[in-house]
Amino acid sequence: MPYRPFTDQNCSIAAALEIVGERWTLLVMREVLLGRRRFAEIRRNVGVAPNILSDRLQVLVEHGLLRRRRYSEHPESYEYVPTRKGVDLNPVIITLLQWGDRYATPGGPPRVPVHTTCGHDADPRLHCSHCGEIIQNGELTVRPGPGATAGQLAEGVLPRP
Amino acid sequence: MPYRPFTDQNCSIAAALEIVGERWTLLVMREVLLGRRRFAEIRRNVGVAPNILSDRLQVLVEHGLLRRRRYSEHPESYEYVPTRKGVDLNPVIITLLQWGDRYATPGGPPRVPVHTTCGHDADPRLHCSHCGEIIQNGELTVRPGPGATAGQLAEGVLPRP
Repeated sequence: MPYRPFTDQNCSIAAALEIVGERWTLLVMREVLLGRRRFAEIRRNVGVAPNILSDRLQVLVEHGLLRRRRYSEHPESYEYVPTRKGVDLNPVIITLLQWGDRYATPGGPPRVPVHTTCGHDADPRLHCSHCGEIIQNGELTVRPGPGATAGQLAEGVLPRP
Repeated sequence: MPYRPFTDQNCSIAAALEIVGERWTLLVMREVLLGRRRFAEIRRNVGVAPNILSDRLQVLVEHGLLRRRRYSEHPESYEYVPTRKGVDLNPVIITLLQWGDRYATPGGPPRVPVHTTCGHDADPRLHCSHCGEIIQNGELTVRPGPGATAGQLAEGVLPRP
């Protein structure tokens, strides 16, 4: 790998990006989660070079976000099906979509998320599991967790005053 | 730019990643949103090469996610303050943290999000703004929005059956 790894950060954000932070990877996951699971279909929609797509799909299979399923024997052809680990990326992709809708898509939202359970536009918001309220941006901080290093424990609650 | 751009996708996810999808960028935003705003401090925590950090900060300032503020005249020194556009990346970073906690941090969560308004662990979840329920992963689909292309309009609701 030509990159400097995100080592020694003991950070779940860095650890997640080590798996899904490569260029194109989240766009490949977008396609699979939208139901497009065949190589040619993903390649066409993402506009990625075939060798890069092969690499990204292989990494996603190795990390257990996708599994390969054969859908044709002659010729031998496979599609890529998201696992639970892959489906659980949905909140990351949806929050990116919302940020892009707001700040990077001047022509208006190309796609609107719909909550299949109730059938309406979802406009998903993060809520606090304790008090139930919508978490406004800027209302979150972090405390050291059970996996914190000594240095992170010493930092205490961030952001510092 | 040495990369092939994410052009012609008419997608808010791709448009967002065009701004924040470069390697290191979301880790730089993590630091700033945790309250670490000075170059040396960010560099130490992220472990990024100085020239790459300079580049990422400049891109974030150009795109309006950060602004530079002078905190010392002699020597002339600046810190990087998140704008509203930058703070609004919080849901992306928090959902990445949650995915990393679940799948990529075997030692347990290094940091736990706290809702400052109620003072408790937030365990943030996406809720549907229409019905108010937690959106389970797999319960979202998309419909064409006001910015959809003719091709996206023809696709209708995804994922297709």
